Amino acid sequence: MPTDRLEAFSDGVIAILITIMVLELHVPEETTWAALRGELPVLLAYVLSFVYLGIYWNNHHHMLAVVDRVSGGVLWANLHLLFWLSLVPFLTGWMSENDFPPVPTAAYGIVLLAAALAYYLLQATLLRACGPDSLLATAVGRDAKGKLSPVLYCLGIGLSFVNRWLGVAVYVLVALIWLVPDRRVERVVTNRPDGPVAG
Amino acid sequence: MPTDRLEAFSDGVIAILITIMVLELHVPEETTWAALRGELPVLLAYVLSFVYLGIYWNNHHHMLAVVDRVSGGVLWANLHLLFWLSLVPFLTGWMSENDFPPVPTAAYGIVLLAAALAYYLLQATLLRACGPDSLLATAVGRDAKGKLSPVLYCLGIGLSFVNRWLGVAVYVLVALIWLVPDRRVERVVTNRPDGPVAG
Amino acid sequence: MPTDRLEAFSDGVIAILITIMVLELHVPEETTWAALRGELPVLLAYVLSFVYLGIYWNNHHHMLAVVDRVSGGVLWANLHLLFWLSLVPFLTGWMSENDFPPVPTAAYGIVLLAAALAYYLLQATLLRACGPDSLLATAVGRDAKGKLSPVLYCLGIGLSFVNRWLGVAVYVLVALIWLVPDRRVERVVTNRPDGPVAG
Amino acid sequence: MPTDRLEAFSDGVIAILITIMVLELHVPEETTWAALRGELPVLLAYVLSFVYLGIYWNNHHHMLAVVDRVSGGVLWANLHLLFWLSLVPFLTGWMSENDFPPVPTAAYGIVLLAAALAYYLLQATLLRACGPDSLLATAVGRDAKGKLSPVLYCLGIGLSFVNRWLGVAVYVLVALIWLVPDRRVERVVTNRPDGPVAG
Repeated sequence: MPTDRLEAFSDGVIAILITIMVLELHVPEETTWAALRGELPVLLAYVLSFVYLGIYWNNHHHMLAVVDRVSGGVLWANLHLLFWLSLVPFLTGWMSENDFPPVPTAAYGIVLLAAALAYYLLQATLLRACGPDSLLATAVGRDAKGKLSPVLYCLGIGLSFVNRWLGVAVYVLVALIWLVPDRRVERVVTNRPDGPVAG
Repeated sequence: MPTDRLEAFSDGVIAILITIMVLELHVPEETTWAALRGELPVLLAYVLSFVYLGIYWNNHHHMLAVVDRVSGGVLWANLHLLFWLSLVPFLTGWMSENDFPPVPTAAYGIVLLAAALAYYLLQATLLRACGPDSLLATAVGRDAKGKLSPVLYCLGIGLSFVNRWLGVAVYVLVALIWLVPDRRVERVVTNRPDGPVAG
Repeated sequence: MPTDRLEAFSDGVIAILITIMVLELHVPEETTWAALRGELPVLLAYVLSFVYLGIYWNNHHHMLAVVDRVSGGVLWANLHLLFWLSLVPFLTGWMSENDFPPVPTAAYGIVLLAAALAYYLLQATLLRACGPDSLLATAVGRDAKGKLSPVLYCLGIGLSFVNRWLGVAVYVLVALIWLVPDRRVERVVTNRPDGPVAG
Repeated sequence: MPTDRLEAFSDGVIAILITIMVLELHVPEETTWAALRGELPVLLAYVLSFVYLGIYWNNHHHMLAVVDRVSGGVLWANLHLLFWLSLVPFLTGWMSENDFPPVPTAAYGIVLLAAALAYYLLQATLLRACGPDSLLATAVGRDAKGKLSPVLYCLGIGLSFVNRWLGVAVYVLVALIWLVPDRRVERVVTNRPDGPVAG
């Protein structure tokens, strides 16, 4: 199976998730700057989740750029990832409308953790199909970020119960780690004699 | 007509349906694990409908991968399928927000039944256009699952009035039957000398 | 400019419109068949608008299948059509939640009329760019349906004030006229020596 | 990296934003023309934002039509633009549901200004990657409109506090400036010997 419909469907779902969160931004009754300031926690949580979904889209885009064909198992591993991502708007709302209390903040981290594991599973499914000498295997390499993130999420979940802002700070940290450009796939694609086949 | 816009439009509609259901998940007022537990029936119904829409997307993807061109009749058979699928979020909400009472649970099954029949109709329309020696005809084969599902849905609809959980159990069973990988199309595509034409 | 992004964007907007209307279907409080029956006018209006948006998508798909390149003017003529279509969910809700009173029913017809004129304008813009000997000109031909529809919409708008059901009946009639398969484009595409270029 | 998934994702997000605003149009309780007239400010603000998002989509479409490949930095510059555009429905609602008071009207202008700067940044990122002799550099040229718009937005933001309608008038003026067809890219594409590579 070629990868184009898988990419189109994932693009669609992530595009919808990233914009659905705007619906969580309730239009304030009053028309003052103070009223907008009251929406600030919700806005900041929206920015964080926007960045997270952007990171997932970006990494998904890069990963599938070095894959040519996918099997039925990959379609389900991909849907599994999309499922956890689809819970992000709900958790963003629960966490931010209540000013980041411990339980919703921890639950937000649990969904991030589950999404990270689902991404890891999707990557592993693709790697098994492509083989250890594939472009994808070269591009993924040691995958330090992918292995560090779940540990940090667990830390963030635990810290949410100590101090809510410590939990949020860890989530922001993980996002920043991923925002630093990761040139692995681009380097591999550029070095490839005939350019990328899929993507 | 090539199949690409049909696939893109269907991908779009199914991607939206699968994410719209997240809007049904009301952010709880309280910020305790107990409050999240109160949302559990809604969450589980969301998982079930997510899996069903995933199955339809997956099967749709596989079916159109062995089809090269479509006629105007296929476009309408496809819209007819999308219409029934578009009622899934509404029924999911009605069923789960009220803790799975008999009538909404049966109505959920009726929509699943109608979607299954619409899928069968779409498949038949494509088969008639492609002919009995086509890749599609080989890939569909005896279509045991496609013939068994409507019978099970009828059983589930009836059982909803006896015991709500029996009805839900049958719907879960049908989803599990479809989740078991179906290698027919992939086998046909792999064996084809020149790979898939469309898809 | 090639037509692919125009088609992808239009597919996206129409796919969203067709599914957004599901959000208008409020989950009934009660869980009886009677409660579902109370939603029946809303459901029927949803079916009508679903069919209308399906017709527009179908015709848009056929029209652009015989067009190779588009200019900036076409992009705006297309956005103008999408604007009027984007008002359909709003009018569907206003009309059906209030049991089809005269003003909303007439307003629904006015939006249908505006969408029909916008489609006609888009078609004219494309025809001017393609020339009178183009495939598109052959495919459009005399365009009897396109000329009849606005007249019928005006009739429906007027009749809404006499008897609401007469107005609705005219809108249903126009939809039925368009549902009858229109083989013009498919015939032209099939007869073309090298198959469709775009699409 | 080829540009197709970037374009598909951006198309998806902009298509959703442009249609999400319809959800802000609350169905009036009453069924008279007067009730619809009460929704007029909301409708007009919707038209303005629809045109703005249409302009962004149109310009984005043109800009990427002369670009062949994108890097990871471009993906983030693009997400940054989409972030500011995603706030448009929220600001449209805040501004129009309250009949265009100063603060929300100024805030609407601030978001338009931020989106314009984000677009400028995306363009600069692409220009740096493509080089000064690229098609894109020729197409962008002196970019008079791109440089004038931020100045006008600042003017509009300031005027919102003097008289709300002056602020809105400036925003309408900027939209009109952009609506005037901009043939630069099309001219470049047409003059190119082998037609556009990407797009």
